[in-house]
Amino acid sequence: MSEAPILDESQVLELADPLPLDGGQSLSGVRIAYETHGTLNAAKDNAVLICHALTGDHHVVSNHPRTGKPGWWVRMVGPGKPIDTDRFHVICANVIGSCMGSTGPASPAPDGKPWGMRFPVITIRDMVRGHVALLDALGIARLHAVVGGSMGGMQALSLAADFPERTAAALVIASTARHSAQNIAFHEVGRQAIMADPDWHEGDYYAVGETGGKGPEKGLAVARMAAHITYLSEEGLTTKFGRRLQDREAKTFGFDADFQIESYLRYQGLSFTGRFDANSYLYITRAMDYFDLAEEHGGRLANAFARSKARFCLVSFDTDWLYPTAESRNVVHALNAAGLPVSFVELSAPFGHDSFLLDVPALDRVVEGFL
Amino acid sequence: MSEAPILDESQVLELADPLPLDGGQSLSGVRIAYETHGTLNAAKDNAVLICHALTGDHHVVSNHPRTGKPGWWVRMVGPGKPIDTDRFHVICANVIGSCMGSTGPASPAPDGKPWGMRFPVITIRDMVRGHVALLDALGIARLHAVVGGSMGGMQALSLAADFPERTAAALVIASTARHSAQNIAFHEVGRQAIMADPDWHEGDYYAVGETGGKGPEKGLAVARMAAHITYLSEEGLTTKFGRRLQDREAKTFGFDADFQIESYLRYQGLSFTGRFDANSYLYITRAMDYFDLAEEHGGRLANAFARSKARFCLVSFDTDWLYPTAESRNVVHALNAAGLPVSFVELSAPFGHDSFLLDVPALDRVVEGFL
Repeated sequence: MSEAPILDESQVLELADPLPLDGGQSLSGVRIAYETHGTLNAAKDNAVLICHALTGDHHVVSNHPRTGKPGWWVRMVGPGKPIDTDRFHVICANVIGSCMGSTGPASPAPDGKPWGMRFPVITIRDMVRGHVALLDALGIARLHAVVGGSMGGMQALSLAADFPERTAAALVIASTARHSAQNIAFHEVGRQAIMADPDWHEGDYYAVGETGGKGPEKGLAVARMAAHITYLSEEGLTTKFGRRLQDREAKTFGFDADFQIESYLRYQGLSFTGRFDANSYLYITRAMDYFDLAEEHGGRLANAFARSKARFCLVSFDTDWLYPTAESRNVVHALNAAGLPVSFVELSAPFGHDSFLLDVPALDRVVEGFL
Repeated sequence: MSEAPILDESQVLELADPLPLDGGQSLSGVRIAYETHGTLNAAKDNAVLICHALTGDHHVVSNHPRTGKPGWWVRMVGPGKPIDTDRFHVICANVIGSCMGSTGPASPAPDGKPWGMRFPVITIRDMVRGHVALLDALGIARLHAVVGGSMGGMQALSLAADFPERTAAALVIASTARHSAQNIAFHEVGRQAIMADPDWHEGDYYAVGETGGKGPEKGLAVARMAAHITYLSEEGLTTKFGRRLQDREAKTFGFDADFQIESYLRYQGLSFTGRFDANSYLYITRAMDYFDLAEEHGGRLANAFARSKARFCLVSFDTDWLYPTAESRNVVHALNAAGLPVSFVELSAPFGHDSFLLDVPALDRVVEGFL
């Protein structure tokens, strides 16, 4: 980016009331970390809530405090950009269960020690409850739109379905209304990799004095590697890496990272452990696996939107095999059945699921046009 | 199977001469475990060599000695079956590098201790060298056919390409002439999972006295889980498991295997550790990742078959996303360019890559017809 880096302007809201959860418990003292950009107008009707993905956070525009890298959607959000902060008051909040400032398993429980695996299992709807509580605190009765890709799209669907008066529009990118068996399978591999790591200590790895506080870094790296493959397309991997060797002329006949793809994956795994909490990975993948919007509404997806008056836009990518186009189409059919206005486009992009984060000019136009 | 179980009739050949390897070393005292069925005719021209897949073995028909389960291709091989032991002398050998009787990392090195990671990195062509040495010992100059699915298909291609006088035909099912970046990526996840397990001990986990001999069971289970997903189709998983819960009425809001797919994957991972050696998994996946038949022949796949006079049959499955139809078509184009007779069919089957092992009657007809 040629623009000057935007400094961290995170704010943290502590909720006054306990947050009720789908699991039946409620969570007291919940903190929600968020950032905002652009000005809320007098009518308070120009707010756009951006929901982040599994390993994302509220640093949608500001630099990431741990990696120093630009925000994850700077290409989409800013003055004159598709989500135009000259027009909109943009809000992005870290989901509960995460580890970037909102309450999650690494946060202190009432006894002062980290929650660890005592943290309640949460759902996508619970994350959305956190967002709605934030909107309440900010005095925003109704969003101009809720926007999200991947798990962010699940939150957008859940907000439009379960809090229908809270948004006038929902933009759902590369997402799904329910996790498939294959989606669950990949997440389960990651969870087992984390839990198999002896440094996981049943999730109780935070106390430096007792366990060294190292955490299950190797298991988390393996989990990230497995997941990362699902974010990219086979074609994209072939174009980007193929069978090219890494800094060598010939195969070594050993177990070093001979191939660029091996080196790349190892780097992805290792660098992830420096910025993400393993227990948060367990809890958020669980929330995604539990997500089935139809099931929450009597088994019929159209029922989920019965009370909604929002307009919708669904976007899928032709090379996304994690949440393929059929999943978006499934949502479109339900919205049609519910009689709601919906536009739908499958975009062509080589990057697989990660296309929603990358340079896809057609996506920019769709987002700008819809908002 | 309603038929009586076939007892283990494994034989073991110890090669008289050292086996030269692509890595430049040679391996002395190589043992090849194999089984045969049907009678070799006087002309010695009715032999069919069956090559097994990554985690397979020579127990193609006989019961597996560790699991007690029927051989892995009893549906295909036997009297009156598509690979008819009334007509053919069927040979199946455990590949070198494996752990079911042929020499591999768990075998004793010259110093009497297990090879472990001192075992040389081998290639698919090295495995085929072992097979050819076995054929030499059995006095079989030329096979009626070599047959294999998945990694077995790689061996069939390599044998036809590199030992062109040794087979009259090659039947290659659900396979590829080179491992793609995505294929390598999944294998690398598995290897990292194994190597991350502290019970791996740099591969030196065999000595019971020193390390308990437990081995990296958790890492190997994770590796198997990740790989297993790639063997099944998304549709197949949805049909077989969907989002159905495992022996419970509702989600537990915990990290138990709530979903059937989780329970199934955990079982696949755990049961695998009882029958397979983790170091063998490292070495065989490495051999597969190194496989690129074109690269071995000046970068042009057709060159690989320049000396062959065999007839070929390629079979792919429409739901196989590990080695999709395009990979088989790639081989067919090369064979066409080499002027060799080849038939090719993409079969429709719901099981993904594993279709070659499962109940696909159309495959039976293709195999029978080709042989």
